[in-house]
Amino acid sequence: MPGLIGRLPTRLPPTFKSLFQNVANPPEKIESVCGWIKSVRLMKKMAFVDLQDGTTPYPLKVIIRRDGNDLDSQLLKQLRTGQSLRVKDALWKPTPTRQQPFELEASVSSFQIIGQVCDTYPLQKKYHSLAYLRSNPVLKHRSNYLGALMRFRSQVETSLIRFFNEHDFTKVSPPVLTSGDCEGAGELFRVESNSRLTDKSSYFGAPTYLTVSTQLHLEVLAMALNRCWTLTPCFRAEESDTNRHLAEFWMLEAEMCFVDNVQDLTMFAESMFKFVVQQCLLNQAILLPSVIPPENADDSETIIARWKSLLASEWPRLTYSAAIELLLKQHAIEEFKFIPEWGKDLKSEHEKWLASHLQSPVFVTDYPRDCKAFYMKQNTDNTVACFDLIVPQMGEVIGGSIREDEYDTLMQELSRRGMKHNDLEWYTSLRQNGSVPHGGFGLGLERFVSWLFGAHNIRDAIPFHRSAGGSIDM
Amino acid sequence: MPGLIGRLPTRLPPTFKSLFQNVANPPEKIESVCGWIKSVRLMKKMAFVDLQDGTTPYPLKVIIRRDGNDLDSQLLKQLRTGQSLRVKDALWKPTPTRQQPFELEASVSSFQIIGQVCDTYPLQKKYHSLAYLRSNPVLKHRSNYLGALMRFRSQVETSLIRFFNEHDFTKVSPPVLTSGDCEGAGELFRVESNSRLTDKSSYFGAPTYLTVSTQLHLEVLAMALNRCWTLTPCFRAEESDTNRHLAEFWMLEAEMCFVDNVQDLTMFAESMFKFVVQQCLLNQAILLPSVIPPENADDSETIIARWKSLLASEWPRLTYSAAIELLLKQHAIEEFKFIPEWGKDLKSEHEKWLASHLQSPVFVTDYPRDCKAFYMKQNTDNTVACFDLIVPQMGEVIGGSIREDEYDTLMQELSRRGMKHNDLEWYTSLRQNGSVPHGGFGLGLERFVSWLFGAHNIRDAIPFHRSAGGSIDM
Repeated sequence: MPGLIGRLPTRLPPTFKSLFQNVANPPEKIESVCGWIKSVRLMKKMAFVDLQDGTTPYPLKVIIRRDGNDLDSQLLKQLRTGQSLRVKDALWKPTPTRQQPFELEASVSSFQIIGQVCDTYPLQKKYHSLAYLRSNPVLKHRSNYLGALMRFRSQVETSLIRFFNEHDFTKVSPPVLTSGDCEGAGELFRVESNSRLTDKSSYFGAPTYLTVSTQLHLEVLAMALNRCWTLTPCFRAEESDTNRHLAEFWMLEAEMCFVDNVQDLTMFAESMFKFVVQQCLLNQAILLPSVIPPENADDSETIIARWKSLLASEWPRLTYSAAIELLLKQHAIEEFKFIPEWGKDLKSEHEKWLASHLQSPVFVTDYPRDCKAFYMKQNTDNTVACFDLIVPQMGEVIGGSIREDEYDTLMQELSRRGMKHNDLEWYTSLRQNGSVPHGGFGLGLERFVSWLFGAHNIRDAIPFHRSAGGSIDM
Repeated sequence: MPGLIGRLPTRLPPTFKSLFQNVANPPEKIESVCGWIKSVRLMKKMAFVDLQDGTTPYPLKVIIRRDGNDLDSQLLKQLRTGQSLRVKDALWKPTPTRQQPFELEASVSSFQIIGQVCDTYPLQKKYHSLAYLRSNPVLKHRSNYLGALMRFRSQVETSLIRFFNEHDFTKVSPPVLTSGDCEGAGELFRVESNSRLTDKSSYFGAPTYLTVSTQLHLEVLAMALNRCWTLTPCFRAEESDTNRHLAEFWMLEAEMCFVDNVQDLTMFAESMFKFVVQQCLLNQAILLPSVIPPENADDSETIIARWKSLLASEWPRLTYSAAIELLLKQHAIEEFKFIPEWGKDLKSEHEKWLASHLQSPVFVTDYPRDCKAFYMKQNTDNTVACFDLIVPQMGEVIGGSIREDEYDTLMQELSRRGMKHNDLEWYTSLRQNGSVPHGGFGLGLERFVSWLFGAHNIRDAIPFHRSAGGSIDM
C-alpha cells in the first residue's frame, strides 16, 4: 500500500510550514503561494512584503522587484496589511546568514490581491494588547500570539493521543447529555429540545443536563476496556467570572484498572505531563510565538526554562496532612488570609504557596474524606486515596483518585452522604460484577495548555470562550 | 531527553495487548497478570481459563496445574465467568503451532479472585444478540464485538489526527454552546443554567443552543490558521428514531483556505478516507472482533474485502444533474418510491442505488442551490459548488462545499432566503477582511466508524447513545 500523500490536490498551494520544512531541499521556483499581508515596506528598487498564513510563528518574506513604471507603483501602493495575496512563480533565494533561511523573490506582475480589507482593519500595529484582541473575537486568532496558542493546543492534543496510545488506552466518547450531576458539586446547565419547551414535554422523558465530568461513565468503560480516556467538553454554570473559570471547557479524563495505590496514579500522571513537555521542547521552534504581548504573558525564555525544569527531577509528593503542617508553620511566619486547618479544603493561596515553596509541581495526596467526592477509595484514617497536582502560579491542574471498588463500603458512603441509591444503581452495580481496583484523574485542558504556554488567562486557550458574564453573540 | 516509558508504575500489570506484542521477546515468567474470566474448563489434571482484559480481540489462555487435593478443587469450582482475577508468577509457554502463539501456566495457589459476580451475571454464553447487549448498557462493552468496536473507533480517531497533522491542519475546539442555528436546518436543543430556570433570567443573556455544526466558527479560524479541523459533539433534537440517527453525535469538520474547486475538496476527502482505511488494514489483526453477532453485522472477510476494494481505484464523481439522469433511466426500468426530479434533494433510496450501481463510494457534486445551505459558493447555473460522498448501504457520510467568499453575493443570498443579516454580521465580515477562496466538509464519526466496521446500527458506534425515544437513565 503506497503512501497517499502524493495524491493530494496539487492545486492547494503549499503551507508556509511546509516551505520552512523544505529548506534542506528547496525547489527553484514556487508555482503559487498564498497568505495574508502582515506588513509592506516600499523601497526604491524593491518592496518587502511579509506574509503570514497561520501555520508558522514566523512570516514568509517576499521581495518584489520593481521596474519603476507607473502601473507598477500603483499596484504596490494598493497593498495593505490584512489583504490576502497570491504570488505566482516566486524564486527561492537562500539567505543562510539570516534568521529566516530563505526569501522568495517575485515580480510585481506575479502578485494578485485575492481579498481586500476594510479601511478600519484593526490589526495594523505590531503589538496588540490581549484585552484588545479579546474584544475582537473574529480577528484575534490572526495575531501572532493567539495563533501560536491555537497551534500549541493542537500539539498538546497530539502528544496526549500518542501517550495514551503507547500505553494501550482506548479513546472513548462518553455522553455529554446526562441525567445527573456526577459529583453533586457543580452548577448544572439544563437541556431540552427547543420544540418541546412550549408544550412542556421532554425529549428524553427526564430532566437532562450537560455533563460536568464523564468519570462515572468512564468507569463503566474501564471495566470493559481496562484503560480508557477521553477528551470532551464539560460544562459548569458557575457564576464566578475569573480568568481561571470557563462555563464550557475541555476535560481530559483517564481511567485505568488494576491500580490500587495512589502513588502509582501520580507516577502515571507525572509521566503523561512530562511526555507532553518533552514534545513541546522538541517542537519549540514551531510552537513558540515570535511576538509576546507586553502584559500578562511569559516570554519564550521563561517558558523554555520552565519546560526544562519540569523534566529535571521527580516532583515532590506530600500528604494533605503534611501539607497542612507546612502551611501552619508558614502561617506562623506570615499569615494567610485563610487559616490552614485539617479537614478543610486547601484554598488557592495555600496551593500556590506550596508549589512556589517547593519550586515544582507538587502532588498532594490523601485529603480528608469530606473534602472529596463519594466515589473515592477510603483509607483507614478518614482520608481518601486521592491526589491533586498543584503547579506554581496556577494551582490545581489535575485531580484524581483510586475509586472505592467495594460494594458495601460504597453503599455505606452513599447513605452517609444522604445520596439516593436508585439513581446510581447502574454505577454501583459495577462493584457486584467483576469489580477491580481502579483509578483515574481529570485534567482541565485549557488550564494545562495556558499554564504550559505561559498565558495567564485560560480564556485565551479556547478559540471562543463561554463564561459567566460573557456573551454568546457569535 | 530519554524516553519516559520506563518510568511508568511497575505495579500496573501488563495489558494483554502488550503481552501479545511481546511474542518475539517473551519473558520467562509474568509476575502478575489481571483480567476477567471469559470461560473456564475443568479437566482432571488441569484447568483452562480464558481471560479477557479489553485490550485485544482474543483471550489470554491460562492453564492451571491441578495437584488434585480437595482445597484445590474447591477453589477451582468457585471460578465463574465475569469474575476478575489476578494470576501471579505465570510461566510463558510458547505454542507456535496454534493460533495463539503462547499460553500462560500457573499453579492453583497463584490465582486470586479479585471481584465476584452476581449469580445472574448475564454475559454467560458465547453469543449475545446485539439487541440483548443494547438492553444492558453497563455490561455490553465487555462483549467481544462491542469492545472491538470501541477500540476500532479509537483507532480511527488516531488515524484522522495523523492525517490532519501531516497536512498542517490545526486541531481546534469551536464552541458547543452557541446562539444560533448554523444551517437553519436542524431541530435545536436549548440550554439554560439550572439555577436560572426559576427566576427566568439567562446565564448568557440570550437564548443559547447546542451546536448543530461548528462550520461557521471553523471558517473564522481557517482565515487565521489556513487549515483547521475539529472533532466535537454536535446535537440535533430530531424526532426520527432510526438506526441512522443520534441526538448526540461526534462530527469531524475540516476547513481549508485557498481551495476554489470542489474537485480539489473531493480529492482531499478521498485521501483522508483512504488513509484511515490503510491504517485499518495495517492493524486488522488487533482491530477485528473474533466473535461476530449472528444478526446485522458483517463478518471479518466481508469487512477486509471492502477495505481493500476501497483502496483499489479512484472513486467516481458525477454531478447532481448527471446523477438525476442516471436515476431517471433506472426509474424507467424499475420505479423508485420517489420520482427523481431535478431541483429536489436526493432521497436515501436514490443515494443507495447510485452507490450500489457504481459499486463504490461516489461523489455527487453541484447540487441545486435551493437544496443546500446559504453559505455555499454559487455556480452560474443555479447550482452550488458542493459535494456529498455517498457510500453503499449507508448513503451520505461526508458533505462539503466551497464557501461563498464574495461579500456581495453572500449578502444577496441571505436576503433571498429571508435571513437576518445582523445575526451573522460576525460571519459575513470575514468576506470584508482578507477573504480567500476556501472550503471544507463534515463527516459524522459514528456513521463513518460503523460503516467501516460493518456494523449496521450507528448507535453501537458511540459508548452510550442518546436518541429520540431513548432513555437517559445513565
